[in-house]
Amino acid sequence: MAERLLPENLNFDGPFPRLSRRLRLGVVGGGRISVTQATAARMTDRCYASFEEMAQAEAARTDGVDAVMITTPNHVHFEGSKAFMEAGIDVLCDKPLTNEVAEAEGLEEIAARTGQVFAVGYAMSCFPVIRQAKQIVADGAIGKINQIHVEFMQDWMTPEDVADAPHVKWRLDPKISGPTSCVGDIGTHAAHLASFVSGLPLTDLRAEFHVCGAPKPLEDTVLMFTRYQNEVPGTLMATRLAPGNRGGLRLRIFGSEGGLEWDLENSEQLKFNRFGEPDRIISRGHGHGMGPGAERLIRTARGFPEGIIEAWANLYTEFAMAVAARRDGVTVPTDWLAYPSVEQGADGVRFIDASVRSHQSGGGWVTL
Amino acid sequence: MAERLLPENLNFDGPFPRLSRRLRLGVVGGGRISVTQATAARMTDRCYASFEEMAQAEAARTDGVDAVMITTPNHVHFEGSKAFMEAGIDVLCDKPLTNEVAEAEGLEEIAARTGQVFAVGYAMSCFPVIRQAKQIVADGAIGKINQIHVEFMQDWMTPEDVADAPHVKWRLDPKISGPTSCVGDIGTHAAHLASFVSGLPLTDLRAEFHVCGAPKPLEDTVLMFTRYQNEVPGTLMATRLAPGNRGGLRLRIFGSEGGLEWDLENSEQLKFNRFGEPDRIISRGHGHGMGPGAERLIRTARGFPEGIIEAWANLYTEFAMAVAARRDGVTVPTDWLAYPSVEQGADGVRFIDASVRSHQSGGGWVTL
Amino acid sequence: MAERLLPENLNFDGPFPRLSRRLRLGVVGGGRISVTQATAARMTDRCYASFEEMAQAEAARTDGVDAVMITTPNHVHFEGSKAFMEAGIDVLCDKPLTNEVAEAEGLEEIAARTGQVFAVGYAMSCFPVIRQAKQIVADGAIGKINQIHVEFMQDWMTPEDVADAPHVKWRLDPKISGPTSCVGDIGTHAAHLASFVSGLPLTDLRAEFHVCGAPKPLEDTVLMFTRYQNEVPGTLMATRLAPGNRGGLRLRIFGSEGGLEWDLENSEQLKFNRFGEPDRIISRGHGHGMGPGAERLIRTARGFPEGIIEAWANLYTEFAMAVAARRDGVTVPTDWLAYPSVEQGADGVRFIDASVRSHQSGGGWVTL
Amino acid sequence: MAERLLPENLNFDGPFPRLSRRLRLGVVGGGRISVTQATAARMTDRCYASFEEMAQAEAARTDGVDAVMITTPNHVHFEGSKAFMEAGIDVLCDKPLTNEVAEAEGLEEIAARTGQVFAVGYAMSCFPVIRQAKQIVADGAIGKINQIHVEFMQDWMTPEDVADAPHVKWRLDPKISGPTSCVGDIGTHAAHLASFVSGLPLTDLRAEFHVCGAPKPLEDTVLMFTRYQNEVPGTLMATRLAPGNRGGLRLRIFGSEGGLEWDLENSEQLKFNRFGEPDRIISRGHGHGMGPGAERLIRTARGFPEGIIEAWANLYTEFAMAVAARRDGVTVPTDWLAYPSVEQGADGVRFIDASVRSHQSGGGWVTL
Repeated sequence: MAERLLPENLNFDGPFPRLSRRLRLGVVGGGRISVTQATAARMTDRCYASFEEMAQAEAARTDGVDAVMITTPNHVHFEGSKAFMEAGIDVLCDKPLTNEVAEAEGLEEIAARTGQVFAVGYAMSCFPVIRQAKQIVADGAIGKINQIHVEFMQDWMTPEDVADAPHVKWRLDPKISGPTSCVGDIGTHAAHLASFVSGLPLTDLRAEFHVCGAPKPLEDTVLMFTRYQNEVPGTLMATRLAPGNRGGLRLRIFGSEGGLEWDLENSEQLKFNRFGEPDRIISRGHGHGMGPGAERLIRTARGFPEGIIEAWANLYTEFAMAVAARRDGVTVPTDWLAYPSVEQGADGVRFIDASVRSHQSGGGWVTL
Repeated sequence: MAERLLPENLNFDGPFPRLSRRLRLGVVGGGRISVTQATAARMTDRCYASFEEMAQAEAARTDGVDAVMITTPNHVHFEGSKAFMEAGIDVLCDKPLTNEVAEAEGLEEIAARTGQVFAVGYAMSCFPVIRQAKQIVADGAIGKINQIHVEFMQDWMTPEDVADAPHVKWRLDPKISGPTSCVGDIGTHAAHLASFVSGLPLTDLRAEFHVCGAPKPLEDTVLMFTRYQNEVPGTLMATRLAPGNRGGLRLRIFGSEGGLEWDLENSEQLKFNRFGEPDRIISRGHGHGMGPGAERLIRTARGFPEGIIEAWANLYTEFAMAVAARRDGVTVPTDWLAYPSVEQGADGVRFIDASVRSHQSGGGWVTL
Repeated sequence: MAERLLPENLNFDGPFPRLSRRLRLGVVGGGRISVTQATAARMTDRCYASFEEMAQAEAARTDGVDAVMITTPNHVHFEGSKAFMEAGIDVLCDKPLTNEVAEAEGLEEIAARTGQVFAVGYAMSCFPVIRQAKQIVADGAIGKINQIHVEFMQDWMTPEDVADAPHVKWRLDPKISGPTSCVGDIGTHAAHLASFVSGLPLTDLRAEFHVCGAPKPLEDTVLMFTRYQNEVPGTLMATRLAPGNRGGLRLRIFGSEGGLEWDLENSEQLKFNRFGEPDRIISRGHGHGMGPGAERLIRTARGFPEGIIEAWANLYTEFAMAVAARRDGVTVPTDWLAYPSVEQGADGVRFIDASVRSHQSGGGWVTL
Repeated sequence: MAERLLPENLNFDGPFPRLSRRLRLGVVGGGRISVTQATAARMTDRCYASFEEMAQAEAARTDGVDAVMITTPNHVHFEGSKAFMEAGIDVLCDKPLTNEVAEAEGLEEIAARTGQVFAVGYAMSCFPVIRQAKQIVADGAIGKINQIHVEFMQDWMTPEDVADAPHVKWRLDPKISGPTSCVGDIGTHAAHLASFVSGLPLTDLRAEFHVCGAPKPLEDTVLMFTRYQNEVPGTLMATRLAPGNRGGLRLRIFGSEGGLEWDLENSEQLKFNRFGEPDRIISRGHGHGMGPGAERLIRTARGFPEGIIEAWANLYTEFAMAVAARRDGVTVPTDWLAYPSVEQGADGVRFIDASVRSHQSGGGWVTL
């Protein structure tokens, strides 16, 4: 739990004003390097033993953190987020937002009440071509949406003995990971991306959980029928036992006039079809089918690849703009702040909850 | 309804003997060119007005046809197939085999009783790399199968007014097309391919039918959860409203040690993954990962592409070998005769029937 | 050397008239199956021991062949083509047209003098998307051409001992194969395709021949700088020792406003870029960016792949239309007859000759 | 010209010791943000008007920089690099190293004399799969190398008026850019990559320079025949007028037993073929065909893409390890320090010089 610096100059052209100073970010959690206070102390300026202690101390300092990133396991996201927001500190929290719907809705309430900036770590929505995909749908260029198919296929849980590895065990422990493993971890990415790009909330689903391969306390695979606003049908799949699939987050949206397809394994390209015309392949980079909203998030010239770290950086940049705007009282265009909101985070928890209810009912339709 | 010639020399190396003469094939149906007797008469040697008349007359001739191909609409497949088999003429019938399960099972019975050769037009199973895929599964090279996903995505029904076109209308007319349109026409290809390659019968499914876009009398889209022998879970999707998808018949089989992926839009390559190793791309051609059972069906050298016409030719060649073997009393190795059987044809009709029952029940599980 | 039937009904819509009868095609040469007269006699109606004998006899019959296909080794193409043309029989001859420029120019002269139809087997130019590529250039959609790069990369000669195999030996024997092996066999395909699509004759080149791997009497690899009409620069490469390349005939044409890229290993798709816009992928099939000149050569519906056999069939169909037009006195639109001409065949021989002269001069520029 | 921090903890497992403190890096040049001293002063701790002043001042401070990165235009690389090395400060300099061979060889001499760490910005060699490619060649897994083809194709100079844009003008000005534009800027990346992966020095070349499209003071396109150690033939192409190519740096190495292919536009995958086996696709990530030397440079898990920024970070990390090793007297395994050396930088200048000499001689062979 420590402090890092957000950029002073957010390096965006146009009307965004310079900040009076660099922002200060606290790190809450952070994987193996945060295990011990000794390690943390060596790497950071200040180090705390609890959320509450950190929130109070930082809020009291004149050079205290402006915001925190929370990357702890899921079951303490609520407690941490609450402590910081109530101390007046903005929060960027990893997904899934919480393990319980009530907690997620609690955070929605606290964020609304305190007015704090709150972002959730759905970084896949921050790839520039994903932003362009969202724009294409919003422009009506694929017509009325008829179908939405999304899947996230990985293969790292294929070995029979992988569930016993230390970094895997907690993901399959209901006390830490919550009522699902695969659904909460990667299914939520798929659900978020589908709604983010289509602009359609997921309203209903029916889900079946499976354990493929070696026995495990939680599902490693989930298959769903989905229904979005306007009765749009679709499917959602997620699994970690698909050998040959490393990061197969794949979104397909089909409309009355065209279609869109994207695959995280080829993250810099977007297939866009207008029915009756050749397929178009939009590549990340300035121009050539990318509009200003997507170009704003580009760092490297056409042909020099970006990756997930840059997508994460886009999420942090948008979050930082919001934090800065709130602190310095300046105005940032709303569409520059497309980071995943606390409501979207809560939608993810409602999605997990609905999938559990459906699975337990034998795969019947349930409403989110 | 006319006669064509099957190859005298089947051009297979090895022990297969030459026939004493070329085989004679009758054409039953055949699309627009068969519409009028006048057209047919100009193209063929002999021309008939009914199945029964043709079957009797050809059976009575010393130079009568050895076999017929039946490419009429679905609702008369039973009547035609029955007439020819009972007259001692072998049959290659298009899919779906019939519109009714009872009819399909009737054909199974007639074929068993008469001993006639009977093949069904699931030509996708006759691509050489598909045969290699089947062999890889049979060899255990992907381990125990854990999941099977298959889809067939086309886009030609995207235009709002396409359902009124003459060549489309009958596909959406329940009297001709049967109780389904998309399921029977392309869903059956998907179901056949999945079982053919995996070696696992489909035992249960739950299906939801959808009409995307303009209203139609039958479904244009179907989404399914599937269950194969050994409780292997999966999904099956078929739609004709997926803009940007021309021939997206895609099969993915994941096992405890590896996976297989194939896409009709890239029909000459097979992705084969052994977990822990690089992906392997097997290309149609001699050697380089293709075994003898797949190589037997190759016509052109590595690097010179084959297509669906050659897959069809493979189906006809295997059918012709079976016809010749029966007539000339010679022996053909069983694994050289992998053409889709009447039982597989009947499985397709049971699949359609199950999908209708499931859809009508609100998407519950039904057993085939 | 035998007779087969060309289609009576060429199955083209529009003004093309039916023939009064099926055309008759003689087969001259034909690989392993033509080795012995005994084999040939079993497969054909009539069988001859020499070009001259066949030409005279067939010309004298009322049911003689209308045309022949010549698929002998290169060194007797001239003798055969001459005999048939002078007997009034049309010719489709394999490439390279001859081993000597003088012979190729002799065939140009004979074809002009006799008025016979003469086609050369550059079948790569008969893929439907290649025809669309040619149209795109002709329409000015990529602007003024600035660069042309073409290569044909295969790998089947990689094994050290392959040159001793019987079916390889003649390709490396200068007495049969002529002064080059790789250049004449696959380099000519590359050169033809580049000029066919770009519409620009190749005017100059500089070439270096290489023997990669085991010693061989002729080159297995050639590297060239090329210059086309209007001083357009480019490169041309051909090799049979590129492991992992089966049929890597790849053409790239770059212009002032856009570019085109095609690869035989993905023969049904064409990449078309208009600078400043997304890449477009044109897929073989009706509509969706394919124009009427390319659609005319399509056999199967979008999504059902075609291959090289269908490209060959397109070449034969266009040849047959020309043969029929000459015989029946009917008119066929000129742009329906885009088969490779005797002049294009002679261009190929001039290309080979220039590459030899350049290589022998130490890789200097030579004019074709 | 300013100071930034190199990582204190280089985050490499194994024997690499922690530094006693963070390293300090000075920035020399740096594009638009370095234009004015005012801008620089706002962003940095200390700011200087000349190389000499900065080198002397920093060397005299107890908290002076340990190393500098030089990202000025090419024509002052020598002066800057010399000043810092002679003041005892390590240097990471952008490519091409200098505009003149004598200057490049001067830097080789200074680096050897002073013992300073010197790295050159050939970041393409720092992609993890490129390191794996190098290892595959070194292991003999593709046999004896027979051919090397490399190209760098971009399209951003396609518009007729682009040469007048401010950020382009200096690249076409011989006083700043040196005797070449395309060769020095992107051709050198291609040449470096080919030698880096193959392990073979480039010994001879013949080059032709072209101006495609609008007139320009320097070439925008170069075509080369190349010869590497052991008389291995090849080609090298670079152009900025290939519409549809954004970052087409493509390397192909063919050997007696297999081949390797890589494309910057698909930077996370490596095609590796062993003749007679299926193609293998190696994906960046731990295991699955990646060895320890390549895995050492991986930041994100399999399936979460990395890009060019991470490749640059790898170059800086290896440079930092060398700087730290020299300062703290600790030992780092030699194969952990594969960053491009001053000799490789000088090779690039000799490559440019040879290409100019060849072009001026009419495209004859010249020795590097």
